[in-house]
Amino acid sequence: MARRYDSRTTIFSPEGRLYQVEYAMEAISNAGAALGILATDGVVLAAEKKILSKLLDTGAVGVRREKMYKLDDHIACAVAGITSDANILINTCRLSAQRYQFAYQEPIPVEQLVRALCDNKQGYTQFGGLRPFGVSLLYAGWDDDRGFQLYQSDPSGNYGGWKATAIGANAHAAQNILKQDYKEDITLEAAVKLVIKVLNKTMDSTTLSPDKVELATITRNEDKDQVVFHIYKDDELKPLLDTANEAHQREKDAEA
Amino acid sequence: MARRYDSRTTIFSPEGRLYQVEYAMEAISNAGAALGILATDGVVLAAEKKILSKLLDTGAVGVRREKMYKLDDHIACAVAGITSDANILINTCRLSAQRYQFAYQEPIPVEQLVRALCDNKQGYTQFGGLRPFGVSLLYAGWDDDRGFQLYQSDPSGNYGGWKATAIGANAHAAQNILKQDYKEDITLEAAVKLVIKVLNKTMDSTTLSPDKVELATITRNEDKDQVVFHIYKDDELKPLLDTANEAHQREKDAEA
Amino acid sequence: MARRYDSRTTIFSPEGRLYQVEYAMEAISNAGAALGILATDGVVLAAEKKILSKLLDTGAVGVRREKMYKLDDHIACAVAGITSDANILINTCRLSAQRYQFAYQEPIPVEQLVRALCDNKQGYTQFGGLRPFGVSLLYAGWDDDRGFQLYQSDPSGNYGGWKATAIGANAHAAQNILKQDYKEDITLEAAVKLVIKVLNKTMDSTTLSPDKVELATITRNEDKDQVVFHIYKDDELKPLLDTANEAHQREKDAEA
Amino acid sequence: MARRYDSRTTIFSPEGRLYQVEYAMEAISNAGAALGILATDGVVLAAEKKILSKLLDTGAVGVRREKMYKLDDHIACAVAGITSDANILINTCRLSAQRYQFAYQEPIPVEQLVRALCDNKQGYTQFGGLRPFGVSLLYAGWDDDRGFQLYQSDPSGNYGGWKATAIGANAHAAQNILKQDYKEDITLEAAVKLVIKVLNKTMDSTTLSPDKVELATITRNEDKDQVVFHIYKDDELKPLLDTANEAHQREKDAEA
Amino acid sequence: MARRYDSRTTIFSPEGRLYQVEYAMEAISNAGAALGILATDGVVLAAEKKILSKLLDTGAVGVRREKMYKLDDHIACAVAGITSDANILINTCRLSAQRYQFAYQEPIPVEQLVRALCDNKQGYTQFGGLRPFGVSLLYAGWDDDRGFQLYQSDPSGNYGGWKATAIGANAHAAQNILKQDYKEDITLEAAVKLVIKVLNKTMDSTTLSPDKVELATITRNEDKDQVVFHIYKDDELKPLLDTANEAHQREKDAEA
Amino acid sequence: MARRYDSRTTIFSPEGRLYQVEYAMEAISNAGAALGILATDGVVLAAEKKILSKLLDTGAVGVRREKMYKLDDHIACAVAGITSDANILINTCRLSAQRYQFAYQEPIPVEQLVRALCDNKQGYTQFGGLRPFGVSLLYAGWDDDRGFQLYQSDPSGNYGGWKATAIGANAHAAQNILKQDYKEDITLEAAVKLVIKVLNKTMDSTTLSPDKVELATITRNEDKDQVVFHIYKDDELKPLLDTANEAHQREKDAEA
Amino acid sequence: MARRYDSRTTIFSPEGRLYQVEYAMEAISNAGAALGILATDGVVLAAEKKILSKLLDTGAVGVRREKMYKLDDHIACAVAGITSDANILINTCRLSAQRYQFAYQEPIPVEQLVRALCDNKQGYTQFGGLRPFGVSLLYAGWDDDRGFQLYQSDPSGNYGGWKATAIGANAHAAQNILKQDYKEDITLEAAVKLVIKVLNKTMDSTTLSPDKVELATITRNEDKDQVVFHIYKDDELKPLLDTANEAHQREKDAEA
Repeated sequence: MARRYDSRTTIFSPEGRLYQVEYAMEAISNAGAALGILATDGVVLAAEKKILSKLLDTGAVGVRREKMYKLDDHIACAVAGITSDANILINTCRLSAQRYQFAYQEPIPVEQLVRALCDNKQGYTQFGGLRPFGVSLLYAGWDDDRGFQLYQSDPSGNYGGWKATAIGANAHAAQNILKQDYKEDITLEAAVKLVIKVLNKTMDSTTLSPDKVELATITRNEDKDQVVFHIYKDDELKPLLDTANEAHQREKDAEA
Repeated sequence: MARRYDSRTTIFSPEGRLYQVEYAMEAISNAGAALGILATDGVVLAAEKKILSKLLDTGAVGVRREKMYKLDDHIACAVAGITSDANILINTCRLSAQRYQFAYQEPIPVEQLVRALCDNKQGYTQFGGLRPFGVSLLYAGWDDDRGFQLYQSDPSGNYGGWKATAIGANAHAAQNILKQDYKEDITLEAAVKLVIKVLNKTMDSTTLSPDKVELATITRNEDKDQVVFHIYKDDELKPLLDTANEAHQREKDAEA
Repeated sequence: MARRYDSRTTIFSPEGRLYQVEYAMEAISNAGAALGILATDGVVLAAEKKILSKLLDTGAVGVRREKMYKLDDHIACAVAGITSDANILINTCRLSAQRYQFAYQEPIPVEQLVRALCDNKQGYTQFGGLRPFGVSLLYAGWDDDRGFQLYQSDPSGNYGGWKATAIGANAHAAQNILKQDYKEDITLEAAVKLVIKVLNKTMDSTTLSPDKVELATITRNEDKDQVVFHIYKDDELKPLLDTANEAHQREKDAEA
Repeated sequence: MARRYDSRTTIFSPEGRLYQVEYAMEAISNAGAALGILATDGVVLAAEKKILSKLLDTGAVGVRREKMYKLDDHIACAVAGITSDANILINTCRLSAQRYQFAYQEPIPVEQLVRALCDNKQGYTQFGGLRPFGVSLLYAGWDDDRGFQLYQSDPSGNYGGWKATAIGANAHAAQNILKQDYKEDITLEAAVKLVIKVLNKTMDSTTLSPDKVELATITRNEDKDQVVFHIYKDDELKPLLDTANEAHQREKDAEA
Repeated sequence: MARRYDSRTTIFSPEGRLYQVEYAMEAISNAGAALGILATDGVVLAAEKKILSKLLDTGAVGVRREKMYKLDDHIACAVAGITSDANILINTCRLSAQRYQFAYQEPIPVEQLVRALCDNKQGYTQFGGLRPFGVSLLYAGWDDDRGFQLYQSDPSGNYGGWKATAIGANAHAAQNILKQDYKEDITLEAAVKLVIKVLNKTMDSTTLSPDKVELATITRNEDKDQVVFHIYKDDELKPLLDTANEAHQREKDAEA
Repeated sequence: MARRYDSRTTIFSPEGRLYQVEYAMEAISNAGAALGILATDGVVLAAEKKILSKLLDTGAVGVRREKMYKLDDHIACAVAGITSDANILINTCRLSAQRYQFAYQEPIPVEQLVRALCDNKQGYTQFGGLRPFGVSLLYAGWDDDRGFQLYQSDPSGNYGGWKATAIGANAHAAQNILKQDYKEDITLEAAVKLVIKVLNKTMDSTTLSPDKVELATITRNEDKDQVVFHIYKDDELKPLLDTANEAHQREKDAEA
Repeated sequence: MARRYDSRTTIFSPEGRLYQVEYAMEAISNAGAALGILATDGVVLAAEKKILSKLLDTGAVGVRREKMYKLDDHIACAVAGITSDANILINTCRLSAQRYQFAYQEPIPVEQLVRALCDNKQGYTQFGGLRPFGVSLLYAGWDDDRGFQLYQSDPSGNYGGWKATAIGANAHAAQNILKQDYKEDITLEAAVKLVIKVLNKTMDSTTLSPDKVELATITRNEDKDQVVFHIYKDDELKPLLDTANEAHQREKDAEA
């Protein structure tokens, strides 16, 4: 019966569902996973890189490494879904952030940025002649008012604040592990380890390597006067992944 | 036969029905419930929180706690339905309220705000290329002219003033209990208890807990020069819910 | 065969019918009835209130009591149909009336207001991407030129002046009684009684009560320098209804 | 085969027909008839009033009595078809006439007014998202240049000058009688009689009465400095109709 | 197979045809014929008048007699097809001519006017939501540059210069006779005779009469300082038609 | 399967084809052929004239003789396809050329003109509610920068520079002959002969005559300060065609 | 099942796919191949020229030779797909580059240009009434910030930085060879050889020749103050291709 109500964005099915939004989410569930954990002293974002051709010039794109984008000095995001859709949304975010900065001479509060974007996304689910954006985002940021924050938004324009969450392929499995292992007073260091553990258990590849994983953190510098968005370089990432691989192997051996 | 008339917002079926509006209401009837009671000395709003992941950062979103929104200093609302649709409507409300304040230097009368929003919602049921908003709202407010007020609006753009009402899942059952127990001269204190009793009887979970329930009140301060929108904190809510749980249990035991 | 021509507003069927307009009228025939009688010294409007929840805050909405709206100082209306559609039309009317007052420094003639609204309604039956308004209106007013007047308009944008008429549920039965009992030189007092008699005979409920009936009059004050729109309060209405109930009962007993 | 080409205004069928226009004409052929005769000293317009409720306030609408409209001081019209569509066209005509008067300080020539309206109507048969106007009009007028004139226009935007013509129900039968009895040098007095005779023979009701017939004339005053649009009052009309009824009866008796 | 490609103007069928344009031409082929012949000293236009009701006020429309229109002092046209469509095009032509006159202080060259109109017509065959104009035109004119000219345009926006041509019903048969009888150095007088001969042979009616035929010429006055558009009056036309009728009869008798 | 993807311009079929563009090309392949050859000292354009009625006034249209258009002093074109579509494109070209001249005080480079037009044509293959232009063009021109040039464009908006090419009916056969006989250092005189030979072999008619062929050249005058667009008059064309006819006949005899 | 979701750009299929985008890619996979390699001292672009008619005037189009376009002094691109679509995108690129130069007085960074274009392309996959651009592009450029760069974009608006990549026909096979033979420290000289080797192995023709291959490089001049876009002339290309042909032949012989 769904067939009658799934070819136009703007209509409800008799059960009150919006099929196009659900199909857009399907597009995301096939995309590389992205995870985020809110720690006491920062936020960690991680993303699975689909093993693309080794010919890809990974250094080509400046601050972005495939799935991480810096939105403003104090906000970054990770995406899962259709990349070209994501690019449009990232642009919108950056513009909003700069306009706010220009108008009020202070950084845009994190939630305000998320909300503005989501209101934009919602319109694509209500007006005819448009399709929803096929992309979910994790936003990590810090602002004076509410400290470190982690948000997640989806194609419907829905968003929420999370302590730890996952989007994209195997998001469900990842969230289960997060639920088990997340602790309220988790430090960034522990969060980084947890995020790698989750990737290790949910990604299809047997061992993690820097070309399959992207990891970044939002922290404050020592003087507490700057927010730092740091993308792990391969040599920073390697030892962390190796440790995780070993642990994963031990666990498997133990199971066997 | 309905099949021919339900795929476009803007047309009547031969029986004079607007199916898209009815389907949008269906979307709401699956959403977490929201209740409101108009008391002599204030208004109470309550909402069922779907038990979401414990990873959700419930403190992340400022004055809003999932389903409660402050629209202006003297008006708040609770929503049931598609959250991203609600966000759009909330924005519209806040803007209307601020524009009125700016133009007339006094707070917008509660009904005027409700009406403006509903006229907006109606348009989404009459013009092509749009779907109705999939959200119902309860508005609680106070103004000089008419004191405390409670309104409810639905996807058709219809609205009404209520003494006590419920929207979302199990709204029908909730309204039945309200009809039985509501008294014209109910105090806010009694209204809070009644609202919790209703939730207790209509929500699917066996015992109420602060992570499943949201409760807020609109009152005036002692000097009667301010309207106060107060969202109950977990420790304020806990004893109320415990008392209700016990009473509910006793009642059940008695039945058995 | 109708099936081919009823899914778009803007087309004629081979028999020259506009099905969407007819379906909109169907929506009205299910709505609570409204009646109007033009008397020598005023106009009376009455409306059936669907017995809604007793929880409805009937005092909440200022000058409007469910189905009666004041359009300007000298014009009021009663509606039958989709309330949110009616709200839009009411707004349009009020604006037209105020603009006329502002431009010409005198009240808008009653028919001119009715006509302006109906031209607006007609457009919704001719242009694509729109549905007709699902509401009929009775307009009661007084102007210098033509004295007391009573108009009725329907979703097609058609309107006419009436001595006595009815819209909504059981409109046909009501009109039959009106035809029988209406006298050219009817006084407002007699008209009020007649209107109640009609409601008594056509409404589904056995006995009339103030919570099921709304009644209002347009008259001129004693100095003949003001038009007065008066909505009957419950205590004014009660004795009238009781008398009617008794008469109705007697009549029934007599029949038996 | 017609079925493929009749659901959109803007397309030709393979035979070169515009079905929506033909269907709109069908809507008119069910409407009350209207007739016009061009006499040497004036124009007469007559229209069948569908026997509407006696409750209709026939005095309510100023210069218009159901189906006659004054367009300007020197032009009037009678309509057959959808009344709300007619209202829109009447408005357009009045505006055109006033604009012309304002711009050139003299009354708009009759044909120019007719033509402007018809060009407007044509657009509704050529552009998508619109339906044709479901109304035909008879225009009677006088101008310096061409004296008394009578025009007829239909939903296609087609129009022509006529000596005598009929639109609406039984238009064909009426035109046949007109063809037989019309004389080039007919006086207004004779034209009035002829028009009543035609109504008498084509209307479904057995005897004519002022509440079933509307009759109006366009003449010049004695000083020949004004055009006079006169709608027959009931007491003017009554003797004319009675005479016709008698003649009709005699004729019938003779036939029997 | 045509069925798939004929319901929208803007698409090609697989054979590269535009069906809506072809259907519009079909509408013309059923309309009364129009002919034109370019002579050395003028242009003659003739048109078949469908025998309409004798009640039609043929004097009502000024310079136009059913199917002939004066576009500017030096250009006239005859039309075949949907009259209301023609009216729109005529208006456009007149406006173009006046604008040119106003801008350049000299009459618009004939072909330039034809071309401007045809570019307009073409748009109605390429853009969605429109249908082609259902009318073909013959344009006769004179300008300084190229002397007397005769053009023909059709619904596709195509046009060409002709020495002699025919549009509307029986256009094919008429063109065959023209081909046979047309001579390069034909005088206007001979052309008038030829045009009547063609009508005589192709029209369905047995004998020609002034109420069935319209005839007009474009010539220059004796001083060669004015272009004269002359529509033949009935008494000018009668002897010409009679002569033709006789000739036609003799020919027929000879055949028999 | 093609059936699903050929009724809308703006969509790709699963094989990545744009059917509407292909159908537009089909329209052209049925139109009269046009050829062009780029010689060392000029460009020759030739076109087959469909044998139209001898009544066509071939002298009527100034610089254009059926299928040749002068676009600017230094550029001309020949078209194959729907003439009314071609007219629109020609207009666009002329306007572009004049605007360039006006802005930069020098003639528009040939390729720039071609490109501008083609970008325009492309839009008609990508946006909804439009059909592609059903016309291909050959452009011949000279500019300071690149000397003599010959371009060809098609409905897709594609274009290319050619030494010799053909469009319209039998384009394929014509191109084959051109490939065989074209020499890099061909003179205009030889090119004219070649173009006639190709027409002779590919046109359906047995012998060429001036009323079936149009021929034009773009050259520079002797002082090399002007570009000359010359359309061959009948008496210039006749001897060339006769020679070609004879050669063609001899060849045929030899074959026999 | 795909059939339901592939006829409109703007909708997701239930699996979350955008079929129109996939079909556009299909259009590209049939187009002539294009390759790019990022070397340490430059970027090489190569493209397969479909063997078009030898009559094509390959010198006609200035800096572009079929499939190579200079976008700005420091950026060039190669395209695969629908040429007329490509032209539109090239225009957009050139304009963006010039606007940036004008606004900031320095060349646009390469990635910024690519991104701007891709955001444009994305819109054509999300809004109704449009089809995606049927073209993929390889962008080669140099800027101060990031040195030599090579990007690839597709119809979805997706893009990425590559060390070596291929688009169009046989792209997959080409990429496999590139993966095997590409070395991080490859020089431009070696890259040119590699690119020819790939073409040799993947193109359908047996031997490479200058009329089948287009090759260009982006380098910096010796003074390092200019970026040089060099398209290989036939005599530069010939020896390189001959060498490759011989090597290919030897390899084949060895295999045999």
